[in-house]
Amino acid sequence: MNIHRVARDLVATHRTASLADKSLRVVEDHRGNLEVALDPVGAKPGDFVITIGTSAARIAAGDPRITTDLTIGGIIDHWTEARWRD
Amino acid sequence: MNIHRVARDLVATHRTASLADKSLRVVEDHRGNLEVALDPVGAKPGDFVITIGTSAARIAAGDPRITTDLTIGGIIDHWTEARWRD
Amino acid sequence: MNIHRVARDLVATHRTASLADKSLRVVEDHRGNLEVALDPVGAKPGDFVITIGTSAARIAAGDPRITTDLTIGGIIDHWTEARWRD
Amino acid sequence: MNIHRVARDLVATHRTASLADKSLRVVEDHRGNLEVALDPVGAKPGDFVITIGTSAARIAAGDPRITTDLTIGGIIDHWTEARWRD
Amino acid sequence: MNIHRVARDLVATHRTASLADKSLRVVEDHRGNLEVALDPVGAKPGDFVITIGTSAARIAAGDPRITTDLTIGGIIDHWTEARWRD
Repeated sequence: MNIHRVARDLVATHRTASLADKSLRVVEDHRGNLEVALDPVGAKPGDFVITIGTSAARIAAGDPRITTDLTIGGIIDHWTEARWRD
Repeated sequence: MNIHRVARDLVATHRTASLADKSLRVVEDHRGNLEVALDPVGAKPGDFVITIGTSAARIAAGDPRITTDLTIGGIIDHWTEARWRD
Repeated sequence: MNIHRVARDLVATHRTASLADKSLRVVEDHRGNLEVALDPVGAKPGDFVITIGTSAARIAAGDPRITTDLTIGGIIDHWTEARWRD
Repeated sequence: MNIHRVARDLVATHRTASLADKSLRVVEDHRGNLEVALDPVGAKPGDFVITIGTSAARIAAGDPRITTDLTIGGIIDHWTEARWRD
Repeated sequence: MNIHRVARDLVATHRTASLADKSLRVVEDHRGNLEVALDPVGAKPGDFVITIGTSAARIAAGDPRITTDLTIGGIIDHWTEARWRD
């Protein structure tokens, strides 16, 4: 799993049915690279989160038919930008 | 999931039966790296899209027997080149 | 599988049910990149461990419904920082 | 999926039964990095091909028990070295 | 699949049951990056081997319950350090 910071929401009106109406967030890693994660936990911009990839992402979404390859698995307590880089 | 821009169509006349007659697009990331994605949503060159990898790509293709490892999951609203790099 | 050193525990009080109450560790590779691994073997900070990714991570967690994509598979005997870089 | 150029055949006489007697090719990406792909389509050195990874590679091999993680999915029409780098 | 050279054996006495008593090898790529692969073919230090990732690694291990994400699939004939870098 990786550590990402939530950057903002992502809107994609025209999408496959397999993504349903799930909330999507743009997340960034410590180098500033952006990815898109499905969010079943209600994270907010600025939160540091654990992101889950591979087939585990679909299961973490609550339904393995949801076609995500990156899902937010939890909000990290007590994480700061400084910790990210140590 | 990643954010890609559709660059152009890709033609591969001689292909495995498992890719069927699905539309393929060349997509590029913000560094200009090229990949090939199956497109079930009808994206056009220049569109910014969400791409889905891992086993989720096959499910997003509408049939898990379709052998794609990257599928366009949606067209992003209100995305610009500038947002890509922030 | 990769070789990681356990850096510290990770606390994420608000998490998906699919991560249950499993122990999570921050692990680092030889370049200092951080990832998060589920730990079923009881590794301690400073231990050099084998980490398992892909769908094997869920099976190694002892229950394939646990949504991890990185699981500690064992503690390496006789590994030192010097060996890591050779 | 990625775009690779077939470099040459690869001979591995001593192999697992799960790779059977399938043809293997050394393929290179636009940076010259080498990987090994199973080839069910009969590509030749110099051909530009689409390569399929993840679990889709096994299905594209024609039998999911074939243990490949990279399979040639098709030969690309009208691709040149120049297009690779644009 | 990737091309690796076997560097040495790896000993991990304390490991998950899911790795059983399988032989593990430290393998290196052409840049010297180290990974750990399960070895069902009996490769020796110095051998150039094909390594298989993703879910195919578990099947190549001879039992999909073995939790490896990298398995040696065969020993390459006629490979040299020079070929690795061309």
